[in-house]
Order: sequence, then structure tokens, then C-alpha cells
Amino acid sequence: MDIVVKGGILVLGDGVFPADVGIMGEKVAALGQSLPGERVIDAAGCLVLPGGVDAHTHLGLSLGPGLDTSDDFESGTIAAACGGTTTVINYAEQGGYDSLLTAFEAWRAKAEGRAAVDYSFHMLINDPRPAILEEMAALVALGVTSFKALLAYKGIVMLDDAQLFRVLRRAGELGALVNVHAENGHLIDELIAAHRASGHTAPRYHALTRPEIAEVEATARALALAEAADAPVFIVHMTCARAVDALRRAQARGQLAFGETCPQYLLLDERVYESADFDTAAGYVLSPPLRAKDNQSVLWAALAAGTIQTVGTDHCPFTRAQKRRGQGDFTLIPNGMPGVETRLPLLYHYGVSQGRLSLSQWVRVTATNPARLFGLYPRKGTLVPGSDADVVIFDPTRHVILDAASLHTNTDYSPYAGWTVEGWPRHVLQRGRLVVRDGQFVGSAGAGEFIPRRPFTSL
Amino acid sequence: MDIVVKGGILVLGDGVFPADVGIMGEKVAALGQSLPGERVIDAAGCLVLPGGVDAHTHLGLSLGPGLDTSDDFESGTIAAACGGTTTVINYAEQGGYDSLLTAFEAWRAKAEGRAAVDYSFHMLINDPRPAILEEMAALVALGVTSFKALLAYKGIVMLDDAQLFRVLRRAGELGALVNVHAENGHLIDELIAAHRASGHTAPRYHALTRPEIAEVEATARALALAEAADAPVFIVHMTCARAVDALRRAQARGQLAFGETCPQYLLLDERVYESADFDTAAGYVLSPPLRAKDNQSVLWAALAAGTIQTVGTDHCPFTRAQKRRGQGDFTLIPNGMPGVETRLPLLYHYGVSQGRLSLSQWVRVTATNPARLFGLYPRKGTLVPGSDADVVIFDPTRHVILDAASLHTNTDYSPYAGWTVEGWPRHVLQRGRLVVRDGQFVGSAGAGEFIPRRPFTSL
Amino acid sequence: MDIVVKGGILVLGDGVFPADVGIMGEKVAALGQSLPGERVIDAAGCLVLPGGVDAHTHLGLSLGPGLDTSDDFESGTIAAACGGTTTVINYAEQGGYDSLLTAFEAWRAKAEGRAAVDYSFHMLINDPRPAILEEMAALVALGVTSFKALLAYKGIVMLDDAQLFRVLRRAGELGALVNVHAENGHLIDELIAAHRASGHTAPRYHALTRPEIAEVEATARALALAEAADAPVFIVHMTCARAVDALRRAQARGQLAFGETCPQYLLLDERVYESADFDTAAGYVLSPPLRAKDNQSVLWAALAAGTIQTVGTDHCPFTRAQKRRGQGDFTLIPNGMPGVETRLPLLYHYGVSQGRLSLSQWVRVTATNPARLFGLYPRKGTLVPGSDADVVIFDPTRHVILDAASLHTNTDYSPYAGWTVEGWPRHVLQRGRLVVRDGQFVGSAGAGEFIPRRPFTSL
Amino acid sequence: MDIVVKGGILVLGDGVFPADVGIMGEKVAALGQSLPGERVIDAAGCLVLPGGVDAHTHLGLSLGPGLDTSDDFESGTIAAACGGTTTVINYAEQGGYDSLLTAFEAWRAKAEGRAAVDYSFHMLINDPRPAILEEMAALVALGVTSFKALLAYKGIVMLDDAQLFRVLRRAGELGALVNVHAENGHLIDELIAAHRASGHTAPRYHALTRPEIAEVEATARALALAEAADAPVFIVHMTCARAVDALRRAQARGQLAFGETCPQYLLLDERVYESADFDTAAGYVLSPPLRAKDNQSVLWAALAAGTIQTVGTDHCPFTRAQKRRGQGDFTLIPNGMPGVETRLPLLYHYGVSQGRLSLSQWVRVTATNPARLFGLYPRKGTLVPGSDADVVIFDPTRHVILDAASLHTNTDYSPYAGWTVEGWPRHVLQRGRLVVRDGQFVGSAGAGEFIPRRPFTSL
Repeated sequence: MDIVVKGGILVLGDGVFPADVGIMGEKVAALGQSLPGERVIDAAGCLVLPGGVDAHTHLGLSLGPGLDTSDDFESGTIAAACGGTTTVINYAEQGGYDSLLTAFEAWRAKAEGRAAVDYSFHMLINDPRPAILEEMAALVALGVTSFKALLAYKGIVMLDDAQLFRVLRRAGELGALVNVHAENGHLIDELIAAHRASGHTAPRYHALTRPEIAEVEATARALALAEAADAPVFIVHMTCARAVDALRRAQARGQLAFGETCPQYLLLDERVYESADFDTAAGYVLSPPLRAKDNQSVLWAALAAGTIQTVGTDHCPFTRAQKRRGQGDFTLIPNGMPGVETRLPLLYHYGVSQGRLSLSQWVRVTATNPARLFGLYPRKGTLVPGSDADVVIFDPTRHVILDAASLHTNTDYSPYAGWTVEGWPRHVLQRGRLVVRDGQFVGSAGAGEFIPRRPFTSL
Repeated sequence: MDIVVKGGILVLGDGVFPADVGIMGEKVAALGQSLPGERVIDAAGCLVLPGGVDAHTHLGLSLGPGLDTSDDFESGTIAAACGGTTTVINYAEQGGYDSLLTAFEAWRAKAEGRAAVDYSFHMLINDPRPAILEEMAALVALGVTSFKALLAYKGIVMLDDAQLFRVLRRAGELGALVNVHAENGHLIDELIAAHRASGHTAPRYHALTRPEIAEVEATARALALAEAADAPVFIVHMTCARAVDALRRAQARGQLAFGETCPQYLLLDERVYESADFDTAAGYVLSPPLRAKDNQSVLWAALAAGTIQTVGTDHCPFTRAQKRRGQGDFTLIPNGMPGVETRLPLLYHYGVSQGRLSLSQWVRVTATNPARLFGLYPRKGTLVPGSDADVVIFDPTRHVILDAASLHTNTDYSPYAGWTVEGWPRHVLQRGRLVVRDGQFVGSAGAGEFIPRRPFTSL
Repeated sequence: MDIVVKGGILVLGDGVFPADVGIMGEKVAALGQSLPGERVIDAAGCLVLPGGVDAHTHLGLSLGPGLDTSDDFESGTIAAACGGTTTVINYAEQGGYDSLLTAFEAWRAKAEGRAAVDYSFHMLINDPRPAILEEMAALVALGVTSFKALLAYKGIVMLDDAQLFRVLRRAGELGALVNVHAENGHLIDELIAAHRASGHTAPRYHALTRPEIAEVEATARALALAEAADAPVFIVHMTCARAVDALRRAQARGQLAFGETCPQYLLLDERVYESADFDTAAGYVLSPPLRAKDNQSVLWAALAAGTIQTVGTDHCPFTRAQKRRGQGDFTLIPNGMPGVETRLPLLYHYGVSQGRLSLSQWVRVTATNPARLFGLYPRKGTLVPGSDADVVIFDPTRHVILDAASLHTNTDYSPYAGWTVEGWPRHVLQRGRLVVRDGQFVGSAGAGEFIPRRPFTSL
Repeated sequence: MDIVVKGGILVLGDGVFPADVGIMGEKVAALGQSLPGERVIDAAGCLVLPGGVDAHTHLGLSLGPGLDTSDDFESGTIAAACGGTTTVINYAEQGGYDSLLTAFEAWRAKAEGRAAVDYSFHMLINDPRPAILEEMAALVALGVTSFKALLAYKGIVMLDDAQLFRVLRRAGELGALVNVHAENGHLIDELIAAHRASGHTAPRYHALTRPEIAEVEATARALALAEAADAPVFIVHMTCARAVDALRRAQARGQLAFGETCPQYLLLDERVYESADFDTAAGYVLSPPLRAKDNQSVLWAALAAGTIQTVGTDHCPFTRAQKRRGQGDFTLIPNGMPGVETRLPLLYHYGVSQGRLSLSQWVRVTATNPARLFGLYPRKGTLVPGSDADVVIFDPTRHVILDAASLHTNTDYSPYAGWTVEGWPRHVLQRGRLVVRDGQFVGSAGAGEFIPRRPFTSL
């Protein structure tokens, strides 16, 4: 073997056992006991995981002049690598391009030569006119086997129900999976108009104008349209108990319906918006917003029960200066938060160590399940012979104090500033190359590759 | 490698991919492409699975003089092997023994030297007096890390709620998992008394005196007591939508609650009891009985959603002559049916081929999940280096007409007589030895070993 | 007393007891035993009920040239009277008028001088522009305290979610109750386009293009928007178990959410569309369409449990000739069926006599609850001193064979043709005047009055 | 008329309207406007209600030597009258008597000549041996048409499931309604044993040994057994969301299942047990215990939706001295609290005035529904001609500070001490006689009568 990761506890999506991981070139060649190798990476006392797959990032997104997310593909993927994530699926956007293929090429060009980890794209569709529906097949042929549709942001990217139904039905025919951002944009805009009319401008009105019921309703609607279209569907960034109920009912009827939540919804709650300090409150402005705390235990239970299958990050960072665009008007605060680097450690500390998730569940929701649902398995998301040698050697004893300065994301604040977590990636390999050594990034921007994905298959 | 299983599609609990399986001695040594080996088993066109784990068999059970199940450990495990199951967890019974250890030794003696596949036991507790609760620790130390409790069969094995609570609490402390037979024995006995008083004797009264509500109630009760005891719990042979609802609600609250169903509940329904022919109807007398057909889609959906984690067989065969004990009184019909041999093929044909389960789900519910829940993983239930080389080479094109004569279980009827399934095990290896070749049993009684199991961990 | 209804069993919404009803002029003056009166109506052996309130009729509706509903206010209200209904709340439509007030006056003119029973209107809003929202107050001031909104019929009357939210919020402020027709018009239009593209023209495609899920989704959405608007809401013509589930969950959260079903959904099912005879199948074309039979027991249980509060008829009859407009294209079949005359007898026969409803529940869902929810109580919907003397003397033993010829609605077919019901109104009084004697209409067109209604209060 | 209650707003279970109530002798003779009468009671500005029916009291109960409830039939019914309750249904107990008839006569003797308001009994059955099941018919013939069964208090009154099933089935045949105290006595005793073994003696362990799950489980079980017995069932003193869920599911399936909650569960919560003062904490020791606060909104919503039909009090008062029996052992604290006097005002203040209940719902849950479910309607629970003239003239503006000294119950503490409510009965009539005038009791002990009740009919 070229490399052997030795002496660790291997954590896979379907179980945990001590094993060495033997690597030849870019691939896992063997799992075994006492494997010989030219180079040995000591994993004693560590957990050995398949590299994380974050199926929800917004690197290189622009919300307007001066409102590019503060992480491009370089800084964002370095942060990912440092946090144990070796594949990101980023959102590419139809908007502004004539065709999906053109859009895809433009987005691919943003990543090419800059990404430090492997990447793929979901293609966001905001205008599913017949030619675009037709063109979806070409994307699937290129290995872009998932699309995104939004029920919010009226006049920008929001689809009406007829449009969403067409996208779902077409995707279902093509073996692609549609990601739905489920918030009712009509309702949100009505609430915004009402609050604006009342002179409400503070960040906390962001949350008050995007209430749970807007998400609950849109989640139920997306599930219903998918049922009618006989297509699988994936609800992104689920935040609350009632939305989870809707998903659970769909699954109980036999529907191929899946869901994602994010660390922020598992760990933070709406009380942050009460801060009198604009920067503090604005730093947590994202969509959907943070919710009442009692949703958290429901989300954790849904992960454990397999009702929600994945944890993505919705990594979409902005700087304080960018957030201040909305000082006089909460609707102008760019929505989003960093998260790609802290996903695995936060879920280990608050999930595994606190008894809410088993080790396998942790790997399943952060790597195996996203890889499987989005057509990357078994290349990504597991460590069996033939898999890409994307390996995280995770030290369960390492203490890290979260802090914008020490994290690698290009943001001047952290939503978890001052929190201490126990457990952090020590070394990370990407296709057999060490990209993080002892917590330091040692890879190179541009080494990440575009990974074509296979069609959707159920878990 | 001693043996390489070559050219097949490997189906694991967390994914599907082409791979060779390399075997050294009794163990899987490698998964890979183009592995070299002294001996090659051609798996081209076949699915390669970890050997099935059937966590619910009743080999060697005696219900009274002349009422031994018609399969002992020899015939039953040969049938298991031919059907692709290489590990059975059989129920051992406290009843009639002074201590659990004595009971265990007696049951182990029944299997020793006779079993053709590996085996373990769940220990059924019918009298959890303090000394017995104490002794549970000794069983766990021997690797018997699961127990069984029944809420039916009053005066024989039924526990009252205080007793079940004690067993659950003690098992929880010991890291053991309690299997619960959930039917309300009080209610059943009342209904039996009423029907007897009305002169009802036919087999169909078996079903009418064990209605769904008896199962629904007891399932909810077992889940409640496990919640109160803060212990994990496993509900065996679930049959109906309302019981599944109860399980789903428990999981949604975060409870460690698991469930099993059986092929007969997925595929057969209560209309069989309408037969005027005693033998026909009596052949389907089992507990819980078969239900209304509309439960089946709910059970399939629950398997797909992960609400129910395993499919066992409740293999408990009797001959027609034995069933005829109950010709004048349905309560004297010995309860049970064969099933250990047909589990994998039935689930492949009606589950995978008909789109109700993915390949991974099929393996998960028949091998990976029972292995994990009952402490056999990764030795059993998967095929990673270090696993026992229990391998099924499953031919998805082989047609088999089900029939008592051609099946290996020692029963003179088949509940599925005349059904044709497509897909059947071609070869089966147990710890590296071929026990089934081209569908013929080539192993030996006595080659199966007792497998100590680890404590319970969640999935 | 002017009149005493003597010797009957009085059935009120909150109980049943023997009592005479004393009438002075147009009003109930006393309930009692052995009341003296100038004129006595013998009710021995009969049930004495408050006159029925049908809150869902479409008399005088035009769907286009030649497509007026076949009952105008005269024939329709005579049919109502004969069936024991003494108040109808008809839908008036904004469409085609500049203002709600103009529309209201036009609709009132249709009824004035023609209606044989008392009447009111719900005002259907299809364009809730600011001036119209403002004008809603004027309608409420006139006693029109309910509005209607539709989520189907895109491009005609369908509101988008922002519009529905505005109507709900405004109505909530005004103390008015919004009736919602809950079917997803976007989805329906997509399905229609697909079936048309496949050359499907038969009536049964009406049902296939308006599936349950279109109703379930829209019901959940209407409830969500009402929750967001903090306004009460009333879902009309509910047909299926899953929509009822949505309503029940809303009520369990404390929402002021109410529902209606209709006799046709309780008693008929989708198999009627399989008829090869166009007239037969087209006769049952209505929206929502008839559903699978297993929904019926759920609807009955929902009435009994109070989850659904009222039974209206959606009386909207067309003749066979009118239905034949859609012979080559199912979308051109005018939607609707007669029903105003048969409501009470059908619910008595299939509800009360078959043990699904108590006598009080029968009166509650057909009279008391619609009167209370729509601001007519205690003038209508009960018989207490001061109530309008709208009295039905219902003979529980009278057999009637349903048949278009003998019924009074102006339609040439009956959806229940050939059915026999036991129980029919013998005499009916409207404000103290006998309008039906021994089953014969003896009232006069034009005697019915417009009844201003009070604001919404909960039950 | 002998008496006219003039100028008030009449509040009935199915509606609210201004009306005078005319009384002749003991009966309501007329409702109307401007009724003439010999004697006029001015109700201007007041609500006029049917006298309250409290279907859950424990007057004259003895839990052992020195442990008689501190209210006998005299003091308890005087308190009832002052609080606007004119009928109580008290629990009579089989225990200690040879036959139900003997028990009934003994209990009747306790009330005869002492009760100040009308009364009836539910008969508690703790030993349903065949002779007792037989004798239930004799009780029904005497107008005792309801029974009580308990699933707690093992060895004292607890029934096993077979016994409960027999009682339910027999009651169902007889047209009687079984009240179930739903807590799992087995589980409670196990928890008590464990806490005692740990040396826990404080009152708060009362709550910790009777957790929600004990109630949830027993509620589901009682509903299941009633379903199997095809008998109606009434769950008393429901306290928590999950038990309400179980009831709601039963109703949705069409089961005749009903429930009661009590003011204490709507208004108080478990934090009272944290008090370091024994008297304070012990004063709230009742079974089931008070729960977490978030259950309260669910209970209110269940009342409003009709899922829970009645509010009783479980009036079972003890003095502080009696409570102190349990100073060294929480299991010796006599269970219970006063409540019969404060029921209507508390529900008016916290229910009606705070928007959780409509006026009709208030009367329905405190008078109409208990009267109807327990066979007292229309004699009690409403005010229609022929009803008993049990009338409450309720002053919605009267402020009362709750306080043991000013209340009439014979207890030296009030669970609501220091609370102020707005709204209190001004005058109360019992069968046409004034028993409370301007808040003062002016009736006489012994004037209350035993009221035979009719068989169960659904609402």
C-alpha cells in the first residue's frame, strides 16, 4: 500500500469497527488489520471517517454588487477541508444565463483551479420554460443529477406550483433529485410589507416575517407536488418540528421524500435576534431563520430516526460590513452564515458525545447519506476498496475554541464564537493526498476536481 | 487470497457497488477490483451479500408432548443456509429451568453439533424474580445480550407490567435489548372465552380472538414501559399500520425503539382463514395472526423509511398432523409457520423487484440491521475486511416455485405453495466454507458455532 | 299561541326531549308540555327540528351562456323547503361587477320576490384589490359576514397566496368568516394539460385531474394562511381523510378552523366515473370529485367528533343537456349536482338510522352549526323562544324513493335515483307559515326574506 | 310565572342570546322576551346559565381512619351551590360492601338529608366478579348509569385488563358509561419502590413517581379495551398533551370516547412541587399530579375543539393536618384538592375572558355536556321549558380574591390562594328555589335530591 491509516476505529455509515485503511494512489485499496504500507499515518486513539460531504454550500454566490459571499471556492474549500469535509455540492444558478449549460460552465469555471476539495453542483432553476426543462437532460448527462427550486423570493427565483410541478416531474423522469427551499414567498412578502409599513427595520423582523408556518406550509406543498409528480424530493434546511411532521407523514405513506437540517438549527435559537447590537443579530440573519428552542430536540430525534437524512451547512457567509447594508432595513441584510468548517465537530460534540447520535449516524448524516442521495456513492461517503481515499482522522479529544480568527472561512465573525468543542479533525486526506496535517491546511487550491454524479437512487 | 468471489455486485447496508470479495480462512480479507485468489467463485451477473441474519427463529421449541417444532437445529439451519441465512438467533426459554444459565446451557446443547449455520440465543424470561434479574448479567457476560418478554399467553409466559418494567430496566443497565411479543393476553383470553362459550371452534377464530387492537395496545404499552425504564426496546413481528404508528411516534420523540416484521405479514392476509379446509386455514395459524391486506403497504413503507428495522421469520413450523390437534378447538392448534428458507427470496422478489425496497434496504433489514442491533456487527451483517466470510451469491434470475417438497424445512406444507419467485441464492459460504453450491446444501450439521454477541448499541 | 306543534320529540343541537313548540306570529314563543294554541299541528310520532340551514348553494349561478344552474332562486328554494331546509346561504360573485356592493345588489335582486325560503349570501372575491378589501366592511355592515375564496380555477377566480392572505386578514379584522374552496388550481391545470395532450376526453378524467392530493395540499395551505393571518377559516366541501387530518391538526393547535362536507362525499364514491354511459358519469362531475370509498367512514367519524361542523350541499345542478357540452372534452362539463332537497333525509337515513350520528349531531351539522358559524343563531338553527318559527316536522317512518321526477329541483336526473330513504319532512313552517304540508309545497315564491347576519363568533 | 329571571343574556350549550327565563314551580316554563312573573330576579348585565353539573366529586370519601375528605355532602354541596354548581355526581364505592346495591344505599344515605344541591353517583367497581357484573343492571335500573374503573392503586381498587374489559362490555350492554382513572398502577408502584429505596420522601416524589407516561399508557389502554368491547368510555382528569392525542386518535376512528379535564390541570403546573414548604407542596398532591406547563395550551385547545367534553373538579379536599400524615413518606399524603366551588369562575376568567373558550363552550363543558353524557339532560344542563329551574345568574364584573376563609369548602387552604378572578355567581336557583342570593348561601342542607339518570346516549 502507498499509505496505511493505522490503528484507528473506522466509522462507516453502517457500523463501527477497528480497521486499518490501505490506500493505493487515489483510492482505498483495502480495509484490514495490520496492513503493511510504505507510509503509515497513525490513527491510534482516533476515529477514521470517510471525508465529509456537504451538499449545501453557496461559495461564489453573488446577491448583487458588493454582495458576493465572502468565501469563494478557494477559501471556502480550504475551510471545508480543515473541518473534515472533502466534497461540497454547491448551488449553481440559472439566473443571468441563457441556458443551463452556459450557467453550469460559468459556475464550473468559478471552481476550476481554485477548489481545494472535490466539488459538484446542484443547478438552481428559476425559469423552467420548455427549453430549460428540455436542457435538464444535458445537465444530468454531465453528472449534474440534482436541481434546486425555491418557493420563496418572489420575483427573483420563486417558482409557482405549476412550475415546481414541471421541474419535479421532469427531474423524476431524468433520475434527478430536486432540492426544495420551502418557505412561502407570498406570505413572507405580505408580512414584510406589513412590518415595513409599521416602520420596523431591526434584524429581528427578519425572523418575524419568516415565521415557522411559512416553512411548514411550503414543506407540505413541496411534498404534495412531488407526490403528484411521482418524483423523489429533498427538502433543504429544515428547522422545525411541524415541518418534520410533514416529512414523516410523507415517508409513512411510502413517498421518496428526504430532508436536510443544518447545525445552526440544531444548536442555535431565535433568542439571538433579541440582541440590541445590530452586528450580533444580523450575523444570525439567514433563511429560514433560527427558531424556538424546543424544535431542537425534535430535529435531533428526526436525525436519529432517519426521518431527516443529512446535515448540510447552507454555508453562505458575509462579512459584518456586508451585513450592515441592512442597518436601516432588515430586508437588505444579506442572508447567510458560515458553517462549512464546523459541521463535523459540532455534530460530534453536541450529537455523539451528548448521546443524541451514534457514531454511525454521525457519519451517515454528514457523509454517507448525502453521497448516496446525490449519486456520489461509493466513490464518496464511505471507505471501501475502490472508494476515493478521502479520509478524516478525527481526534475525539482535541479541544478547539471556535473563533473567527482561527477558523479558515473568510468571515470576520463566527456564529459560535467562544464555544468550545471537543473533537476535531487531525489529518485529512483527499484522494490519497494529505490536505490537512495536524490541523493545518497543507493542500493546494485547484487540487479539487469536479465529480460527475450518478442518477438518484433511494437509500 | 484463499477464495475470491469475483465479478459480482456487492450489496451492503449502506450502498451497492461492483467489487470482488477476497477471503482468507474464515474471514473477509479484502474488497477490491481484480483480486487474485487460489480459488475463484464466479459471481458475474449475481448480487453478493453478507449472509442473512434471522433474529427470530424457534428451532427446537416444544409446546408440549408431541408438539416440538418440526425443525430442530439441524433441519432448520440447513433450510436457513439454503435460503441465504448464515446466522440465526433462536429463542431459548427460561421455562422449566431453575436458572437462566441452566436454561442457556440446555438450549446450547440442543444446537451444539447439529447446527449447520452459526447461531445465538435470546433468552425468554417468564419469571423475573430477583434472582433471575440478577442472573441476567451472567448471560450478558456469555454474549447473550438480548432477552425476550411476552405480553400474551397468560399463565404461561405472560409478564405483567411491573415485571416487564423490571426486565427492561435491568436489561437497559446491562446493555441488553429486550424483544417484546406485544399482544394483550388478558384481552385475548377474554375473547377466547367468549367465542368458546358460543361454540366457535374453527381456525378462523384464532384470528378473531387476537384482533389488531390487542397488538396495537400492547405495542404502545411496551413502548411506554421502555420509555419509563429509559431502555431500548425491540418489538417483534409487527403486523399492522396502527402498531407501526405507535412505533413511529416513539421514535419521533427520540426513543430508542425498534421493530421487526416478517415476510408473512408483508405478503399474506387474513382471507386465508376463510378457507373451509381445516389444514389450509390451520397452516396459517400463527400469533399475531395475518391481518387485513391494507396493512401491507404500510409495513413496506415502514421498512423503506427505517421505522421498522428488521425482517425476521418467526420460523416455528409444525406439520399438518400437529396442527390437527386443534381440529375441535382452535386454541389447540400449535401456533407458527415455516419461513427461514424463503425470507431473502421473497423480499427480493416482492420488495426489490417490485420497487418497494432498494437493494441496500433489502440487505439492511435482513442482515445488517439485525446484526447491528443484536451485537453481531461487523462480524456478521456486512462484508468488510475482518468480517466473517459469510457470503451469499444471489442469482437474481433464478426462478423457483415454492413447494414443501423442494424446500429444506421439515414441514409437509408451505404457506407459499405454488408461488414463483425470481431470484435465489446460488452459492452460500459460511466462514469461508461453501455450504450451498448451486442451490444444494453441501455443508455439515454441527459446523455452525455459537456466536457470543456484544452489548446493544444503537444503529 | 297562534300555532302549537304538538306531541313531537324536539331535536336541538344540544339535546333531544319531548316538547310542544308554541308559535306567535313569526316567532317561537314557548317550548313546553301541553301548550294551548289556536291551531295545532300534530307531531306525534315525529321529530320536530329547527329548519335546516344549507350554507352552500349555487342558485342562479351562470358559468357562461346556456350554463345557468338549472335551479334559480324559485325552483331551488322550493326544493329546499320540501327537503326541510328553510334558509340557504348562496354564493354571490364579485366577477363581472365593479364593486362588491353592486355585485351584492345584483345577486339580491335575483332572489328578491322569487325565493320561497329565507336566504343570505357569501360574497365570492376573485380580485381582492385594495378598494375591494376596503369595501368588505360595507358588506359586513349589510349583514353579509362571510366571503369566499378559491384556490382553484386559475385565471377565473383563483387567488394566489398573497391574495388569500389579504382576504383572510381583512375578514378577520371585520369579524367575517372566509369560506375556502381548497383545491390546487396550478396542479389541476398541469394534470389537465397532460391528459388532454394524451387525448383523454371522458368524464372520468375529471376525477383523475383533480386528485385527492390537490385538495389535501390546498386545505393545508388555507389553514396555514389563516393561522398566519390569525383569522378563522371554513373549508368547504371536504372529501377525504387526509384533508380531515389537516383540519384536525389545526384544531388541536387551537386554531379557529372549521369544515364542511356534503352528502355526496359521505355516500357516493369514485366508481361512478367508470360508467361507460356519458350521462351517468357526467352527472357526477363536480369539484372536488367523488373519492375512494374508504374516505367515507373517516368523514362520518369527523362529523361525529365535531372535527367537521357542517353538512352543506354545494347544490349546483345542471341538466343532462347542459352536461353534454363536455361530451368531447371533460373540462367543458359544467361542474355540479343537485342536493338541496335530499340533505336532511339522506343524513337521517344513512347517519342517524345507521348509528353514525346522534339525533342532535344531525341537527347540529345541518342547522345549528351553520347558523352559529354564519351569524344566524339563535334566529335560525334552533327553536328557542324568540327564534324564527322555522320548524320541520320530520316523519321518521316515511319511505321515499328518490327520483328526479318526484323531487322539486329543476334537474332531469338525480344522483341518487332509485335509492329509498326512510324518514322525510312531513310539514315545514317558515316563520310561522306552513310552506310544506304533508310533503306538498304550499308556500309561495317570494315569501323568503334576506336575512342579515351577525359577525362570526366561534361555536 | 312564579319567577322570571329578567334581562340577562342566556348562555346555552348551543348558543347565546338575550332572553328572560320564566319559572313555574321547580321547572323552567318559558324562555322569552318580556315575560311577566310574580317575582322578578334582575339579571341585567349578567349571564344566565343552566346550573353547573360537576360529574367528578369525592364528598364523603374515606381513605382510612382520620382520612375522610374534609367535605361531607353538606359542606361540599354548599360550596358547589355558591360556585354555581347545582348537581354533583359523586363517586360511590363498591369497596367494603357485599353488593353494589348495598353500597349504593350506604352512599345514598350519606347524601340524603344533607346535600344542598341535587346529586347522583357513579359506582366504582373494584371487584367485578360475576355476581357484581350481574348486579350492574340493578344499578342502571335505579338510574345509576355510570361506573368507574381504575387502572391505578394496585391491591386496592386497580383492575387488570381482563376485569376492565368485562366491566366495559357489561356497561356497554346496559347502556352505561364507564369512567376510567387512567394511570398505570404497576409502573407507579415500581417507581415508588425505587424512590423509597433511595430514601426519597418529599412531596415532589409524588409527581416523579406518577409520570405522564403512566397516564398516557393507561389512557391508550383504556381506549383500546373500550374499542375491543365496543363500548363507550370516558377518561377522567386528563392532564397532558400525549393523553389527549390518544383520545383524539380514538375519536378520529369513530370511537365513542370522551374525556374530562379539571381546572387544576388547565391552570396549575408541576413547579408547585418544588416548594421547600411541606404544606405548600403537599396541598397540590393529587393524582394524576400537576404537569409541565406546556400541556395547558393543548388542554384548552382540546376543550375548544370538543376533543375533551367536560371539566370536572375531582373535588377531594383534605386539611393540612391530614396532608401531614405524609410528612415522612410522600405515599401517605392523602391525594386530592378542593375545587367544586371555583370551577365556573376560574373557567370564565381564564377561559372565556382570555379568549380560550366561547361562552357556549364554557357552559357546554361545565353543564351541558356532563348532563348529556351522564343521562341528566334536558332536566339538567340546559334551560328549556321542562328543564329543572337550576339557574345561575352570573355577574361577569364581580371581583373575588380566592381564599380558603371566604370559600365554603371545608378546607384550611386554597390551591389558588391570592388569585383574583373577575366573574362570580350572583344568584343561584335550584329547582326554582333561591339557594344563593348575592353570593350568600340561603338554601338548606337536605334540599338536594337524588336524581336518577337515563342510559348513555352520545352527544
